[in-house]
Amino acid sequence: MLVKEKVEQAVALLQEQGVDCWLTFTRESQINGDPTLPFLLDGDVTWHTALIVTASGDTRAIAGRYDVKAIEDTGAYRQVVGYVQGIREPLLAALREIDPKTIAVNFSQDSEVCDGLTHGMYLILWDMLAEIGCAERMVSAERIVAALRQRKTAAEIEAIRGAVRAAETIFDEAAAFIQPGRTEREIARFMQDQARKAGLALAWEERTCPSVFTGPDTAGAHYLPTERAVARGHIVNMDFGVKAGGYCSDLQRTYYVLEEGASSAPDEVWRGFDAVVEAIDRARRVLKPGALGHEVDAVARRHVVECGFEEFPHALGHQVGRFSHDGFALLGPQWEKYGRKPFAPVEPGMVFTLEPRVTVPGRGIATIEEMVLVGQGGSQYLSTPQMELVLI
Amino acid sequence: MLVKEKVEQAVALLQEQGVDCWLTFTRESQINGDPTLPFLLDGDVTWHTALIVTASGDTRAIAGRYDVKAIEDTGAYRQVVGYVQGIREPLLAALREIDPKTIAVNFSQDSEVCDGLTHGMYLILWDMLAEIGCAERMVSAERIVAALRQRKTAAEIEAIRGAVRAAETIFDEAAAFIQPGRTEREIARFMQDQARKAGLALAWEERTCPSVFTGPDTAGAHYLPTERAVARGHIVNMDFGVKAGGYCSDLQRTYYVLEEGASSAPDEVWRGFDAVVEAIDRARRVLKPGALGHEVDAVARRHVVECGFEEFPHALGHQVGRFSHDGFALLGPQWEKYGRKPFAPVEPGMVFTLEPRVTVPGRGIATIEEMVLVGQGGSQYLSTPQMELVLI
Repeated sequence: MLVKEKVEQAVALLQEQGVDCWLTFTRESQINGDPTLPFLLDGDVTWHTALIVTASGDTRAIAGRYDVKAIEDTGAYRQVVGYVQGIREPLLAALREIDPKTIAVNFSQDSEVCDGLTHGMYLILWDMLAEIGCAERMVSAERIVAALRQRKTAAEIEAIRGAVRAAETIFDEAAAFIQPGRTEREIARFMQDQARKAGLALAWEERTCPSVFTGPDTAGAHYLPTERAVARGHIVNMDFGVKAGGYCSDLQRTYYVLEEGASSAPDEVWRGFDAVVEAIDRARRVLKPGALGHEVDAVARRHVVECGFEEFPHALGHQVGRFSHDGFALLGPQWEKYGRKPFAPVEPGMVFTLEPRVTVPGRGIATIEEMVLVGQGGSQYLSTPQMELVLI
Repeated sequence: MLVKEKVEQAVALLQEQGVDCWLTFTRESQINGDPTLPFLLDGDVTWHTALIVTASGDTRAIAGRYDVKAIEDTGAYRQVVGYVQGIREPLLAALREIDPKTIAVNFSQDSEVCDGLTHGMYLILWDMLAEIGCAERMVSAERIVAALRQRKTAAEIEAIRGAVRAAETIFDEAAAFIQPGRTEREIARFMQDQARKAGLALAWEERTCPSVFTGPDTAGAHYLPTERAVARGHIVNMDFGVKAGGYCSDLQRTYYVLEEGASSAPDEVWRGFDAVVEAIDRARRVLKPGALGHEVDAVARRHVVECGFEEFPHALGHQVGRFSHDGFALLGPQWEKYGRKPFAPVEPGMVFTLEPRVTVPGRGIATIEEMVLVGQGGSQYLSTPQMELVLI
């Protein structure tokens, strides 16, 4: 059902963007499949496969014979052609018939989710299209793929809500599990076990989902949980998400482990925590359709620096979807590695994380990651925002 | 440990092939990561990452700051450089220092496992290298990546043996589970449950691992198990594999469900089964270093046709490794979709499947898939070959 709905959305996007033909070209999708495929197919394909969508609503698939039936089952394609020996002939026949002015294909310098075509497959396509004088018609499908991923349908948002709720439940269970002496690895394993019991897949690779950091001088975000034990006076932070119905959550929470006899955290820990909470909400309030990602990032970044902390060495927030890092538009600074992503305007239907972080010297890292949905007038939390430091 | 061993193997391959520098360039590896990465890294990377190996043994990684520690932990790189804003400067500095005559990068028209560089990343690299006058030095790393995947080390072969044994155990359990009235889907679910209980991942996507086909006129290989029930007089065939220690097995087995009161299968079923068994062993006997894939394929293909059956619409066999379909060299016919794969010579250390199939009209599909290891003098079975039709 989702495939059919997204292919129909693609037809509308082509009309809106004035592109007459979009071609997704892939092979052995379990090996280097285009990240666009889950919107166009259920499951994997083995041999060279072409999925064609035109602005006039002509939808066609050309695939190896054994992959045909599963593609037909999606109900998204008017025509599914199978072959045994090679895709060249049926693909060129289809393109001759369609005779598109432009052929949008999935490559992008700026965005990995829009960059599913490998260079080898690009060369194959170039050689084939050259035979019918069409090679020069290839253009980047970046805007089509970006919009398809970013403009979430109601069903997609519902799936994300489910993934957020499921991860929040596990964070709550983890809060009761954290105590002095428990190692980062034990806490991570506990959370993974809870996910498994609930029948949930993790939102990213197992070694760092969750990542757990306790105390000062840890390796920094993305590193795997270690044998380091939680101790009194530590800030503990965790980054975790699950997949539900094919869609991800991605959240971070911060805890503080009380010193013997203390009833609250020291001031500097509260200052760090509050700076993060306030940075998130300030960013959320300016996160509206038409805003540019780097503007939103700057609001949170500035607040953290004004509170006396070092600025965070990463973007404020990314989109979430089928991947924990998804979409094109990014709430990030104008740094080389982010390319044009921070310059893409925010649109309704986008789901973003907001995740500033500050280092509290001698204590650890205070960081929170919330998820928000952009609507016509502004953004609302999809997660239940962490407003209070959890004291342990 | 494996990463260090494979990176050392890569240095030797560069020397052997007379290539002075190999560059793997990737980003967001959970989204469209290069299939070469598991040989070069443990786990995923987020930002633009360059992994450089030279013929002189200079190994360097350049990665986003949060990915540095995990790369250092592999022990495979002499130098790991982290960055915050962008990879351009540290990457160009490294290449200026190395000043390679050729820079082999991971693209290939013929082989998906050698084709991990996306077209967008190729363009990024081209633009950066052009700044230092090196863009034209880029060549395909196809031969390096192919050899690295194909020439299995002792540890890799041991992992594959483990995956084969584990799958065979589950096939045996399935044989006891198949009976008239059970549906394809029930049998598939049973096998997946057995895998889960044994703590094993499936070798390919869940919907078709296993695939199960009972009786005549099924959808054909690669289609998912259906509600069709096993009945007396059916041939049942299954395609299944698991992953153990990061490596796959990929096997097929054939069963026959006895008619009421019968004690054996009809002659035409035996003829089909025997044609498959004999085709496999004939192919195995000619599968030696130096043989060409299409020659080996032809031996099995010819035998099946000589036995009066239609030729199978796919290659006789593919390599197996980290993926169920792996490596470059293929035991396949000279068809367009296989490109140059069937022309690559067989080498010691390759692990192949042998999987002919025949249709027995009115009964179903007889097919067996064995796995073999190529040694200096010839090939031996890694699987316990199915010599007898399993009667149910």
